[in-house]
Amino acid sequence: MNSSEQIITGRTESTLYKAWLQYSEPDSSELRNLYKGMLERVVVEGGVSRIPPAAVRELSAGADTMLGVTPEFMDQIPTNGEGPYLWICLHSEENGYGADRRKWETRRDAYSLKYVLSAKEERLELIAASKAGVIYGIFHLLRGISLGFKPAQWAIEEHPVNQLRMINQWDNADGTIERGYSGRSIFYKDGEISKDLDRVRDYARLLASVGINAISINNVNVHEVETGFITEEGLPEVTRVAEVFRDYGIALFLSINFAAPIAVGGLDTADPLDAGVREWWKETSERIYRHIPDFGGFVVKADSEHRPGPFAYGRDHADGANMLADSLEPYGGLVVWRCFVYNCMQDWRDRSTDRARAAYDHFKPLDGKFKDNVLLQIKNGPMDFQVREPVSPLFGAMRATNQVIEFQIAQEYTGQQRHLCYLVPQWKQVLDFDTHAAEEGKGQVNRIVSGSLFGMKYSGAAAVSNIGEDECWTGHPLAQANLYGYGRLIWNPGLSAEGIAQEWAKLTFGSDREVIDKVTDMLMASWPIYESYTAPLGVGWMVVPHYHYGPDVDGYEYSRWGTYHFADREGIGVDRTMATGTGYAGQYFSPNREMYESLEDCPDELLLFFHHVPYGHVLHSGKTVIQHIYDTHFSGAESADGLRESWASLQGRVDAVRHKAAADRFAEQAEHAKHWRDVINTYFYRKSGVPDEHGRTIYF
Amino acid sequence: MNSSEQIITGRTESTLYKAWLQYSEPDSSELRNLYKGMLERVVVEGGVSRIPPAAVRELSAGADTMLGVTPEFMDQIPTNGEGPYLWICLHSEENGYGADRRKWETRRDAYSLKYVLSAKEERLELIAASKAGVIYGIFHLLRGISLGFKPAQWAIEEHPVNQLRMINQWDNADGTIERGYSGRSIFYKDGEISKDLDRVRDYARLLASVGINAISINNVNVHEVETGFITEEGLPEVTRVAEVFRDYGIALFLSINFAAPIAVGGLDTADPLDAGVREWWKETSERIYRHIPDFGGFVVKADSEHRPGPFAYGRDHADGANMLADSLEPYGGLVVWRCFVYNCMQDWRDRSTDRARAAYDHFKPLDGKFKDNVLLQIKNGPMDFQVREPVSPLFGAMRATNQVIEFQIAQEYTGQQRHLCYLVPQWKQVLDFDTHAAEEGKGQVNRIVSGSLFGMKYSGAAAVSNIGEDECWTGHPLAQANLYGYGRLIWNPGLSAEGIAQEWAKLTFGSDREVIDKVTDMLMASWPIYESYTAPLGVGWMVVPHYHYGPDVDGYEYSRWGTYHFADREGIGVDRTMATGTGYAGQYFSPNREMYESLEDCPDELLLFFHHVPYGHVLHSGKTVIQHIYDTHFSGAESADGLRESWASLQGRVDAVRHKAAADRFAEQAEHAKHWRDVINTYFYRKSGVPDEHGRTIYF
Repeated sequence: MNSSEQIITGRTESTLYKAWLQYSEPDSSELRNLYKGMLERVVVEGGVSRIPPAAVRELSAGADTMLGVTPEFMDQIPTNGEGPYLWICLHSEENGYGADRRKWETRRDAYSLKYVLSAKEERLELIAASKAGVIYGIFHLLRGISLGFKPAQWAIEEHPVNQLRMINQWDNADGTIERGYSGRSIFYKDGEISKDLDRVRDYARLLASVGINAISINNVNVHEVETGFITEEGLPEVTRVAEVFRDYGIALFLSINFAAPIAVGGLDTADPLDAGVREWWKETSERIYRHIPDFGGFVVKADSEHRPGPFAYGRDHADGANMLADSLEPYGGLVVWRCFVYNCMQDWRDRSTDRARAAYDHFKPLDGKFKDNVLLQIKNGPMDFQVREPVSPLFGAMRATNQVIEFQIAQEYTGQQRHLCYLVPQWKQVLDFDTHAAEEGKGQVNRIVSGSLFGMKYSGAAAVSNIGEDECWTGHPLAQANLYGYGRLIWNPGLSAEGIAQEWAKLTFGSDREVIDKVTDMLMASWPIYESYTAPLGVGWMVVPHYHYGPDVDGYEYSRWGTYHFADREGIGVDRTMATGTGYAGQYFSPNREMYESLEDCPDELLLFFHHVPYGHVLHSGKTVIQHIYDTHFSGAESADGLRESWASLQGRVDAVRHKAAADRFAEQAEHAKHWRDVINTYFYRKSGVPDEHGRTIYF
Repeated sequence: MNSSEQIITGRTESTLYKAWLQYSEPDSSELRNLYKGMLERVVVEGGVSRIPPAAVRELSAGADTMLGVTPEFMDQIPTNGEGPYLWICLHSEENGYGADRRKWETRRDAYSLKYVLSAKEERLELIAASKAGVIYGIFHLLRGISLGFKPAQWAIEEHPVNQLRMINQWDNADGTIERGYSGRSIFYKDGEISKDLDRVRDYARLLASVGINAISINNVNVHEVETGFITEEGLPEVTRVAEVFRDYGIALFLSINFAAPIAVGGLDTADPLDAGVREWWKETSERIYRHIPDFGGFVVKADSEHRPGPFAYGRDHADGANMLADSLEPYGGLVVWRCFVYNCMQDWRDRSTDRARAAYDHFKPLDGKFKDNVLLQIKNGPMDFQVREPVSPLFGAMRATNQVIEFQIAQEYTGQQRHLCYLVPQWKQVLDFDTHAAEEGKGQVNRIVSGSLFGMKYSGAAAVSNIGEDECWTGHPLAQANLYGYGRLIWNPGLSAEGIAQEWAKLTFGSDREVIDKVTDMLMASWPIYESYTAPLGVGWMVVPHYHYGPDVDGYEYSRWGTYHFADREGIGVDRTMATGTGYAGQYFSPNREMYESLEDCPDELLLFFHHVPYGHVLHSGKTVIQHIYDTHFSGAESADGLRESWASLQGRVDAVRHKAAADRFAEQAEHAKHWRDVINTYFYRKSGVPDEHGRTIYF
């Protein structure tokens, strides 16, 4: 119980593996001594068995690693009156997580950490509303110690802003990960769930440490083996995984195959209005909850990119989702229904269809038709996790439907964890965006996502994970910051991206100020840098098809995916105005729609998303579009090289293993950014014929 | 022995499966009766055991299926003097194929078929120089009957023009086929050689029927399992395959991994000058011939596209090939060493490197350094099986080195057996090309390839197969014509592409004149049609990277593969002249080099391969380049639709199964050709800004 080895079950020695849970010894000996005294004795109200073993383990490990102290857990306040102690009180009638977790109420996850000094005694009080709250509180306390919080400073009351704080694994039973850039799956091996779940346990711990409370463990594209997870044969194995996550207060979800009634149910239809199908799903949910009483629910990708769905039977998404919701309702289960629905067989010659419109066009008319245990999972933008997109106009448009925002921590289109791209600033920008769905200043996405604006029963965020079997979990050691940051940001969207970066840098690399500052600066600069040498002005999609790594300006231009830039020798961009284009701009509330509609008011960064303009069009920046392209690509590649240099300057300040691992990535990024620069510049020079004002090298 | 079921071991009933060995009953009852009488009795000089069982089986099956006759085999000329008979005489001292096959002499494969009518008797004489010759003669006889040859017309003496008539399978042990478009491998299943080799036997029969005498059975990219084929563990399984092909006079080759001494030999080097490595290969060859006495030899892809090779040890290709040749020499084995060597990590910004130059630059300096059981296998063109390329300048340039020309029957870049593209005209054009390596009219590629020009000991042709598990073998039923045509053409490059097409059409679809004519016309039109709607004027490569199906004009433009078109808003093409370009044109003999060097004399069809020209450049045809692009793409798509219509018009004349199978392909081709048309036209319109003279629809 007392050694960190029992928590980090895998590679205990590796700083790469420990991620942000390094538990480095605090620099200040004063601080060390203060906490040492305080953590030697832990009084748990009602006895230590009241609180989760994971919390006990974590506290013990943290105290041991940071302070060299082995906490003694006791039921009673010490009567000898000697010295300070930690007091933990769980305010909950419930013992299991079952009913508790299913409520998805933010107050359930609340806790407070307060320093109390009286004439009689000195103690730190952790009071939590649930077992999960105890875990969160312990992680918070240990984080605070790492960050140099003094005992007397504790006076916080915390609860998450978002109810559902979810991770989506896109892992497949064959061990591959769709859009995985960190090695193979930690969940699956050779077509089945891994026998050894130690690493999954370590992952659960990482997730709980940043407040994640839900996870779907299989790809939304549900293949054959995974379709069988919900059968009597499949469930015992899934249950093993659920148990691991339950220990950390995380509810397990499964991505399901809408055609499962046919594939594994022996029925000849999956029609959501068919009585037999409905009965089959009811039996299935009953079966699942028999094995996993606190099962979270289903994640569903239906009628999207060739996945089966209700359309095959002339039904709509509400029919499909509600059928599943009916089956889960008796157990408090949720249906997380993805809105990533569009025509992926579009004809590029057809200029009337606009993929950006698709989610809104499909789902807006269904507002109010979904049962209240259905949540629509909406990607942050209308396309697909590009480096820059406007916010999805569905946010705010659906006032009577539970919504979950979907982010992608995996850097599919943002450098695939070989380039540094800290995404928290992007997510923060999305969450802060005012949809104007409500009166002045109340329509921000984060108020919609948290459910507070429209008083939704369920709401929150989900994100595609970026982890795999890599020693450092995330391919690029610094990509850990995105996983950390996602959890922290959706717990509290009020945090700043920079604050999260600093926090992460300190937890991960220790208290060397230069390291913290430099890493923070690098993280904060990285998204703009990546944007600058890749696709300009919000146009997106200039990547190698399928792989999505590296430039291919025309790669998606004549494809079926609905992802075009329409660059010709005169200009570039997609006309999505109401006046002359696809009308997509009209899906926003005023005044956003007018802002995007107007060539003058549209922000530069999204210009080509909304307008087709000549290369000579002058931006707000005063530059022409073509010169902007050249300038950003020259400077972007330089900045990428600057990241490499910055990191190189930290040699000796960061341990050699992590330094080398990241240095290799930065070297690749610097080289690849030049390739990006040259391909993009050459492409547009060849097409526009306009030379660079500054006469820099553009290959012809 | 007497039924066709014993020959066609697979799907006996399917016309798709039977390919060109349908053995339809001759229309003419006169012909039927004449042959019926003649094939009732077959006299084999020295006894039927002198000739290959495959020949006996084939003759029996053919006679049975076409004529309803069961031949009686006898040792003696019938004394009763009644009626005509077939007389077979094998002029050979040898019984086995071993030493026989290894000689690779064209006269060994000779046979004659003569009608002899005397006062005493009437007989058809098949006289052959080898067992293989008997097989070829029997297939020729049966083909002749199918084609309506009258008995009295037989007066032929045949021998192949090329010694080595080889097929390369790019099949992998896991059952996949690199660049396979006809289903999975018939050779391998689940990581090993198929237990059931019936279909391989049927394939051997198809190959022997068109004179193929050598086959390499595994991909030139040799993976782990296949590397082990040459070990004591691997050889018994390979031997099973060798036995199947031996029955049809076809020698088995293996593609080997140059690093096999390390991978399976336990050595720490594969250096071709290392004594241990040389010894290991000697032992390996000894081992192979112990199992397979008539083993053909090795096919080697070395130092190409990341395959290991002698460069790793500072050795050259002659060192590598000669080491292998030494080991094979005692057994008469050959080394077929591929010349597809180039820098596949090229930087597109570097305009001084030209992939087209690579094979010549690498191998020309080594001329004369190879042992005489080494054959260099040279792709027909300098790039990689594009729809149009010039002939490789290596042909003729190497006067002291055995050469094999490599074709690709698999339609990797020519529609992947979903589009019709009869490639025999292309191959014929290549073989007829005068390299001017010899005095006027003697320098044709076919004289180099056959070995006659420079008196080479070994020579011939190899081609990448297009078959797989598909019912019809080749994906597109009409793609069978390419496999058939390859065998026929390299047996005798004097045959016309049209004659081969007619022959194939009649054998495959029977004697309906309209079917034969239409199919022949379609085949003959298909290569120009495919060229017209795809990459214009010899520029090549405008395909989706990796897949090579469908248009992506810039797909390879900024890649590492050395495959560029350099299209900008002014013009397009690769300057490969000596004066201002890469100098590639200088690799040809005069006057070819001057022809290609000159903008005036360069043939239109290769203009963009050799020159970068403005869109307004006027072709010999009188059209501008840009108008040529538009015109060919509009007409090409129309012609593709015309193919669909032509085939549709044969409904009822071709059996329903084959008609449907091909009709589906033609429908796809017609649709896909429109996509090609529109992508190419739009791309060049966007780039050039030049409108179509005829105002047809170009999407913008």
